Amino acid sequence: MSGRHGHGEFDLIARFFEPLSRAAPGAFALGNDGALLTPPEGASLVVTKDLMVAGVHYPEGEEPAVLARRLLRVNLSDLAAMGTTATAYALGLALPEGTDDTWVEAFAAGLARDQSEFGVALIGGDTVATSGPAVLSLTAFGTVEGEACLTRSGAGAGDDIYVSGTIGDAALGLRAVQGGLAVLPPGDRAALAERFRLPEPRLALGTALVGLATCAIDVSDGLVADLGHISERSGVAARIAADAVPLSEPARRALAGGEVEIADLMTGGDDYELLFCAPPSARGDIDALGCRLGLALMRIGVTGPGQGVTVMDADGQSLALARAGYRHF
Amino acid sequence: MSGRHGHGEFDLIARFFEPLSRAAPGAFALGNDGALLTPPEGASLVVTKDLMVAGVHYPEGEEPAVLARRLLRVNLSDLAAMGTTATAYALGLALPEGTDDTWVEAFAAGLARDQSEFGVALIGGDTVATSGPAVLSLTAFGTVEGEACLTRSGAGAGDDIYVSGTIGDAALGLRAVQGGLAVLPPGDRAALAERFRLPEPRLALGTALVGLATCAIDVSDGLVADLGHISERSGVAARIAADAVPLSEPARRALAGGEVEIADLMTGGDDYELLFCAPPSARGDIDALGCRLGLALMRIGVTGPGQGVTVMDADGQSLALARAGYRHF
Repeated sequence: MSGRHGHGEFDLIARFFEPLSRAAPGAFALGNDGALLTPPEGASLVVTKDLMVAGVHYPEGEEPAVLARRLLRVNLSDLAAMGTTATAYALGLALPEGTDDTWVEAFAAGLARDQSEFGVALIGGDTVATSGPAVLSLTAFGTVEGEACLTRSGAGAGDDIYVSGTIGDAALGLRAVQGGLAVLPPGDRAALAERFRLPEPRLALGTALVGLATCAIDVSDGLVADLGHISERSGVAARIAADAVPLSEPARRALAGGEVEIADLMTGGDDYELLFCAPPSARGDIDALGCRLGLALMRIGVTGPGQGVTVMDADGQSLALARAGYRHF
Repeated sequence: MSGRHGHGEFDLIARFFEPLSRAAPGAFALGNDGALLTPPEGASLVVTKDLMVAGVHYPEGEEPAVLARRLLRVNLSDLAAMGTTATAYALGLALPEGTDDTWVEAFAAGLARDQSEFGVALIGGDTVATSGPAVLSLTAFGTVEGEACLTRSGAGAGDDIYVSGTIGDAALGLRAVQGGLAVLPPGDRAALAERFRLPEPRLALGTALVGLATCAIDVSDGLVADLGHISERSGVAARIAADAVPLSEPARRALAGGEVEIADLMTGGDDYELLFCAPPSARGDIDALGCRLGLALMRIGVTGPGQGVTVMDADGQSLALARAGYRHF
């Protein structure tokens, strides 16, 4: 791990980050130019990299421990979508000049907490100073047997479309973080905010879907946009029913209170649930898997020949979506 | 590769970056949450990650193609220091809002040029927008047989200390880029600037040193500071002779002209030469290796019991160094 942060960075690395590398012998205690990753025999490595920018992907002033955990979880979610067992990560921090040790210590404490929860270790990285907002970069590593990973491109016409958990909470949570959703009870606002701040990477679901699902993606850009990625990469049309999309109780209350429209929930990002397809013959296995994991796996639509994503409302009409994509605040 | 850059980023990825991934089947044409890296049987992967920030690690306004190549080369240099065969890289770009397509196109063209020179391919990454200066993050991958990589920690007392190429050119080159070194002929200034802008990762040297060298590091923080890293990690003292440190002709002219002191050259960063140790029994092999590669491999000192780095001047006195470390401009 190299550090060119400009104010005692070698101390910082040793004090706060080196302990995070102790479970990874190939990390060389962060005292090398790089790290060694030896996958188990017959396994492949899966690599993913996501950045977060202060003021773009999270509000300035967010707690550093939460930021650290969110950065890690967002990347682990990508590994989950590929059916990967997560093992390690490398960190790249461009921090505003004058960032104090307390901030870095709290950030490292957040990483320590989540890396023990998810079974990963820090293997290296870089810390530098920037005159702009913080830019947090993480590269996450995992393994799959052989080359058996899930991709976006395997869906066939006639597959069922599923999504895990509930959809739209993170988009509402972002509004709550920003002081919105005043009509909801404080408990609802807090629950939604937590869903935005600390998404749950569906790692156990991902690995269990290898051999069962034909494709998978994590819902980061929004349900409709991410289904669009599957549609495009797999060369199939996708049709989902709006009223089949699973919503949490707080989201239902926000909808009933006129705070939000169903289309906003289906195009909001950052849920980090898994969206996947499987043939109808797999329905029994997928129901059993949901029971085993204690996680709702809802069938929300079907694929067919053609292209594009259609969302049907309760009256069987195609729902107009103002935007399929995703814009950060 | 995910893109949340805010202005047509999916198009950018497809147009400019997807072609860079074509040599890597595990990159899934950048259309997946992550990439698959399958090391050859019995091999391990080596991972390294370095960031560059505009205005900190390079002057604002540097040509995007040069930036791209420098970012890649700096990371490949870390792989070289570990004796690695470079294979792939992932890219994380936080670009100022409003960065235009021309900039991205030129950046991608720089990558295309160097990835064919160094035999690597793009396997994924992330592009985001920032309100601050550009932050460029790269994670580079390579392979070693078994776990046979070079580290900083293997030097024993009585080893010879070597460095490749010439030292101090990049520190002078940075001054030239900033308009300094006016007493030198324009050709010298241009040559030195080029050494700063486009360092040469010593990949062939690195792989050849596996089994021959006891330790290695690339000179990024400065010769003395990087020798300090070896000293600390290996638990040995290091003593080098200032007049044995190889200097280029332009550097000699800068020294003779009083533009710079020898201590500045030995503490300046960014040379990206390899600094390594080997037992005296390896001298013949190392001389032969230098001949084969057409690269000067100079013996500049020895290790011994103890700790710390000492630089001896021509009179056998210990040279006072104002700073061992490294500060970017």
